[in-house]
Amino acid sequence: MIDSPIVKSNPKLLVFVPLFYTVWSDSVLTPSEISVLEGLLTSQDWLSESERKFLLSKIDPANPPGFEELNSWKSTLQQLANQSTAPETLVNLGIRLAALHGNGTVSDVLEKARPTLSKIEASLGFISHEAIFNFQPGHKTITSEQGTHYTFDVDEMARVLDGDQSEIIRKVKTLISDPEFAYVGPGDLDLYRKQVLQWCKFLAQQGYGAMAYPTEYGGGNNMAAYFAIMETLSYHDLSLVVKFGVQFGLWGMSVYFLGTEKHHRKYLKDIGTLELPGCFAMTETNHGSNVKGIETTATYDHTTQSFRINTPHEYARKEYIGNAACHGQMATVFAKLVIDNKDYGVSAFVVPLRDKGGKVLPGVKIKDCGRKMGLNGVDNGVIYFDHVVIPKENMLDRFSSVNDNGKFESPIPSDNRRFFTMLGTLVGGRIGIPRSGNAASKSGLTIAIRYGDQRRQFGPEGGTEVPILNYRTHQRRLMPLLANSYALHFALNYLTHRFVNRKEEEMQEIEALAAGLKAFATWNTTATLQECREACGGKGYLSENRIEILKNDTDIYTTFEGDNTVLLQLVAKSRLSEFRQEFANMNVFTMLNYVADKAKTGITEMNPIIIRNTDDAHLLDAEFQLNAFRYRERDILTSAAKRIKRHIESGMDSFDAMNVAQQHLVEVGLAYVERVILEQFIQQVDKTSNAGCKAVLKKLCDLFALSQLHKNKGWYLEQGYMEGVKTKAIRKMVNQLCWEIRQDAVPLTDAFKIPESCLAAPIAMRTT
Amino acid sequence: MIDSPIVKSNPKLLVFVPLFYTVWSDSVLTPSEISVLEGLLTSQDWLSESERKFLLSKIDPANPPGFEELNSWKSTLQQLANQSTAPETLVNLGIRLAALHGNGTVSDVLEKARPTLSKIEASLGFISHEAIFNFQPGHKTITSEQGTHYTFDVDEMARVLDGDQSEIIRKVKTLISDPEFAYVGPGDLDLYRKQVLQWCKFLAQQGYGAMAYPTEYGGGNNMAAYFAIMETLSYHDLSLVVKFGVQFGLWGMSVYFLGTEKHHRKYLKDIGTLELPGCFAMTETNHGSNVKGIETTATYDHTTQSFRINTPHEYARKEYIGNAACHGQMATVFAKLVIDNKDYGVSAFVVPLRDKGGKVLPGVKIKDCGRKMGLNGVDNGVIYFDHVVIPKENMLDRFSSVNDNGKFESPIPSDNRRFFTMLGTLVGGRIGIPRSGNAASKSGLTIAIRYGDQRRQFGPEGGTEVPILNYRTHQRRLMPLLANSYALHFALNYLTHRFVNRKEEEMQEIEALAAGLKAFATWNTTATLQECREACGGKGYLSENRIEILKNDTDIYTTFEGDNTVLLQLVAKSRLSEFRQEFANMNVFTMLNYVADKAKTGITEMNPIIIRNTDDAHLLDAEFQLNAFRYRERDILTSAAKRIKRHIESGMDSFDAMNVAQQHLVEVGLAYVERVILEQFIQQVDKTSNAGCKAVLKKLCDLFALSQLHKNKGWYLEQGYMEGVKTKAIRKMVNQLCWEIRQDAVPLTDAFKIPESCLAAPIAMRTT
Repeated sequence: MIDSPIVKSNPKLLVFVPLFYTVWSDSVLTPSEISVLEGLLTSQDWLSESERKFLLSKIDPANPPGFEELNSWKSTLQQLANQSTAPETLVNLGIRLAALHGNGTVSDVLEKARPTLSKIEASLGFISHEAIFNFQPGHKTITSEQGTHYTFDVDEMARVLDGDQSEIIRKVKTLISDPEFAYVGPGDLDLYRKQVLQWCKFLAQQGYGAMAYPTEYGGGNNMAAYFAIMETLSYHDLSLVVKFGVQFGLWGMSVYFLGTEKHHRKYLKDIGTLELPGCFAMTETNHGSNVKGIETTATYDHTTQSFRINTPHEYARKEYIGNAACHGQMATVFAKLVIDNKDYGVSAFVVPLRDKGGKVLPGVKIKDCGRKMGLNGVDNGVIYFDHVVIPKENMLDRFSSVNDNGKFESPIPSDNRRFFTMLGTLVGGRIGIPRSGNAASKSGLTIAIRYGDQRRQFGPEGGTEVPILNYRTHQRRLMPLLANSYALHFALNYLTHRFVNRKEEEMQEIEALAAGLKAFATWNTTATLQECREACGGKGYLSENRIEILKNDTDIYTTFEGDNTVLLQLVAKSRLSEFRQEFANMNVFTMLNYVADKAKTGITEMNPIIIRNTDDAHLLDAEFQLNAFRYRERDILTSAAKRIKRHIESGMDSFDAMNVAQQHLVEVGLAYVERVILEQFIQQVDKTSNAGCKAVLKKLCDLFALSQLHKNKGWYLEQGYMEGVKTKAIRKMVNQLCWEIRQDAVPLTDAFKIPESCLAAPIAMRTT
Repeated sequence: MIDSPIVKSNPKLLVFVPLFYTVWSDSVLTPSEISVLEGLLTSQDWLSESERKFLLSKIDPANPPGFEELNSWKSTLQQLANQSTAPETLVNLGIRLAALHGNGTVSDVLEKARPTLSKIEASLGFISHEAIFNFQPGHKTITSEQGTHYTFDVDEMARVLDGDQSEIIRKVKTLISDPEFAYVGPGDLDLYRKQVLQWCKFLAQQGYGAMAYPTEYGGGNNMAAYFAIMETLSYHDLSLVVKFGVQFGLWGMSVYFLGTEKHHRKYLKDIGTLELPGCFAMTETNHGSNVKGIETTATYDHTTQSFRINTPHEYARKEYIGNAACHGQMATVFAKLVIDNKDYGVSAFVVPLRDKGGKVLPGVKIKDCGRKMGLNGVDNGVIYFDHVVIPKENMLDRFSSVNDNGKFESPIPSDNRRFFTMLGTLVGGRIGIPRSGNAASKSGLTIAIRYGDQRRQFGPEGGTEVPILNYRTHQRRLMPLLANSYALHFALNYLTHRFVNRKEEEMQEIEALAAGLKAFATWNTTATLQECREACGGKGYLSENRIEILKNDTDIYTTFEGDNTVLLQLVAKSRLSEFRQEFANMNVFTMLNYVADKAKTGITEMNPIIIRNTDDAHLLDAEFQLNAFRYRERDILTSAAKRIKRHIESGMDSFDAMNVAQQHLVEVGLAYVERVILEQFIQQVDKTSNAGCKAVLKKLCDLFALSQLHKNKGWYLEQGYMEGVKTKAIRKMVNQLCWEIRQDAVPLTDAFKIPESCLAAPIAMRTT
């Protein structure tokens, strides 16, 4: 076109080159686009009939410009566009092009035609803007310029995270960075399991296994340190963590908490040194969540002062028992105690499984569970007992025992309460597991965020490619999960502190807290690692980058130590019972206060100004956030209680009523635990003295709070607690916080100080 | 208490036994409960001072009843409760107990005291009801009685699903049920890969590999059958599916669609028989999603009439290439064509990798990608080319070529459009993968639903345990996913039909449809299999039950054939461009019509009666559902267009503007594809003639529609399209539909007719 005789003699026609180039270089020139263009060309009354005809021929789909021609247009335009730094339009560019080849008259004509020409450009809409940038390659964009900045002191943040456990955490990190702890692949089960056992022995030698046991049995008498060890080990291999937890936590703690002094003296030291590897045999094939229903029996024989442990049928075998397939020599076995043909409910017994040489003892049958989704370094097995006789003293008799007359005895008369008290002592597992899971989340996030910070893909036309963490969707995938990992870190520290310093009367609350946090945290781990896998694309699928291993190893965390859905119902029932007590306990005066409180909430929170308040300061106000969480917690609880009551009063069986409300109860549990997490995070922000750390923690806390509110916006809108303008403002603020935190994302994962040899993912390796 | 002298002489006190038993047998007697009880006992003015004192002593936490005493209360009460069939209260039970031991006077006194006694019972709230059921074990509940019913003809439903491909589906199912296709574990990579190759050869021998190729090259000329084969194979091993797809789909189809007759003649027959195993080498380490940025070069040398294929640096190596690590002898290599130092963009070339003996050729270097999260039966590899020379005819020259003068030629002048046209021909992969993923979802759902139907856990006190699929939370986890699998089945069939019968001008729409459905379906697969894993608890974690394998094998589906997030942005851009054209094309008259249409929507859908309408008939009305989906699709698209326009007009770079709106664009893509899925499902229901099938499909369609609306309720509330009463009614209806579909769940998975040997999970095996 540029060199055609018509144009040579009529340079004003060059004004159409940028427009035509744009039309042809767009991926598809559709019939409707063409008809619009035709219409707009026809309406350019400053053109002669023959000029119009010529121009129309240039946008005829049956007769496209040649490859060389299109390219010559492009280079001409690029040259021209590069002479100007200001943003251009296609019409401007065209006028400048025509002016180069024509004279002042051409410019005058075209300036007059500008309005009708601009209509053509407008009809191209978005692509005309893209085209302009095409002609000005290498220009800067806001998206390209974002990057990592260190706005706070990483070491200081690590101190905030580690708190008073920093010393033991440092030691364990040093240990697992040792070449001794080089990873072993899951290909060879046998090799992997042996290595994991070896690692556990190594840790036991350093005194880490017995950390929580009393000093008189070789322990460190430090429960808080034990949890810090579990968590820190989780930066390494999770099979190691679970094997460690089975031996020193489940097996050792069951002897410690369910047994009495004679058991402690006899076993604890050897458990702590791993001289005596053991199992925790509670779950049966037919009874997982419903532990009360287990069918293994421990039948007392007073004449021989012994119990017979028996598996009555195939599906009453103990299943998934860690340490059973290869290494366990003894087990805490949960069984129904039977005396004189009477069933006294579940008790626990120490039962030998193998001799010192590892040979399975007579009457015991063990099968290997085989390959699992993950945790293949742990030797899970199935155990059957065929009338195995154990002496009377092997009963772990803290909560139930058989007296010298062969009669049942217990300090807790109610079967129900005894059962729950017994299980309650084992709540430690529900602290260790979520802490381990959250550590795995941190590993996954460190890998995915470092990768996202370095990996470049796409970019402005002609410019360099952009780190994928600069893309908004990538930020929305990872930043809220980074906030969650911090939020859960502080909440789980709080739970640990409550547990370690517990008083008897707080146990119910601590159990609910542990169950709820376990459920929330382990689901969050699964979601986080899934997102990290996808965020790393094909690289995330390669085993060498370890995200898949982290994901598969921790996947069972949502199931073991209590299925999450079941746990949240326990939390809800505990909340309902507290709620009932609170109400039952109210006299007229407190009742009035309560109503007044609710009314006040109504005035301060539910008034038309507040439900529509979209000010940044308001949305970032911790009081607003916490009030919203509390309101939801309280309202869901109240409505669940009313709903169940209504069903029961209408004659429904209580079992059915609970089932009808089951999903609602899960929400009760979640709303409770979310409020606790936010509360703890806010407290942490308040008490952080270092200004840099405080500022970024405040942002993370805001992101946690607002992304939860965003997730639950349907509920808040239904309640009239917020209006649409406000929930939209929250969404916008979530995006903004993600954008801001992106610069801190790498430093925030640095603060986890995960040993590089543990991360091990090639895509996340630092070259320094 | 029952036998104490005070009670013996004063039997009216027995009225308290049920209440006290309940208090003590509850898991925890809290201080607040005790203080309430004390207060209520003190207020019983029909008791003497000494009687009150005695009773108070019986609820003293420091002095609980003995184990034997509590048990004797229980058996007494159970005996009594079992004599009555009507629902009881604790007070009733107490009065009856006292009457048994006392006389008429006792009854009179207690009847008078009933109101104050009932206050005590009321204060116990919920647990008093539970206690009553404890005394009446074995009672029926609605929850217990739910179960599987066959309300429709499974064979008929299978015919509806298979449609006109039923013959080939039946054949493939027979084939993969053959002992030849016994599963191989992923432990030994080498063995597994060899077996998968063997299976592919077996399928090729039956003519399945060449199914889509023209008959003149030994093919079946049946693209629809090819997709049905891919899908059906997915009930078996997914490594097999992917290896099959790499060979016959990616490698074969790239030769077929990007090459010309000379290539078809030379290669297609041997590809179809697997005589010539090959690869599809597009992705590079540094360029996955951004294919346009690949850096491998194909430099033309006119003197020798050849190309030199070269990997310019480490990160421009081809990566994740299936069939590369072990078996591929040739590859379609995507590279930048360079002629006379000028870059002509991405073209495709056939490049030999290995000789017939499997030895890697000079200049080619191949590394094994090693172990992956899944698909370990596929030998993915990394390929480097060191100036490998190939003859000129190896250029796949349908869309670009070098002419006899050594000049570049193309029927499509625009680089952009040529690139997208080329990629567009490969859209088949975006049909095969979601169909394969949806088949994996069906396998997972079949296993999890059968297990949930049989697995019993918990139950009403004293009754038998209940199948876990009877629990509301379990239904809410699995039933909507079952509905999704049906919905996607029909939508993917529709997509296949559109693709197989495509016209040139529909390609843009079909590409958008494929990209959108691929993203929605593969994310749904990941979510479904994750949920199935958790729904099967520990059993779901064992490899033998195959859910973990399905999950891990398909996890990469969200990434390959285009990362889902990137694909949805492509969909959105395509929608925006259609939208732009639609507007551009409007003259004043149609514009007015459009506005009138919108106003009509306002009148019919957004009026105060409809936004609050909670009638079942309304919620289950396909027109209401589809209108809501369409409204959302249109509104999100319009607002995204406006938003981007606003940003650009305010001077923002178009690249930045797209990034700011990125999450919004993902929603545009999802809203579009969700509408298409619903539309197709509704059409399927309409055209299903068998009444039984039609009825259950309608329920599934309703569940799909309403669970999507529930998921997006925050958006509808924000828009004022629905009010809270309506979104609540939708939630309730979702629960109700889950409850109803539960009885059809097993039959609905039966209708997939997945061979038992393919399912293979012990927990899902039929004993018959």
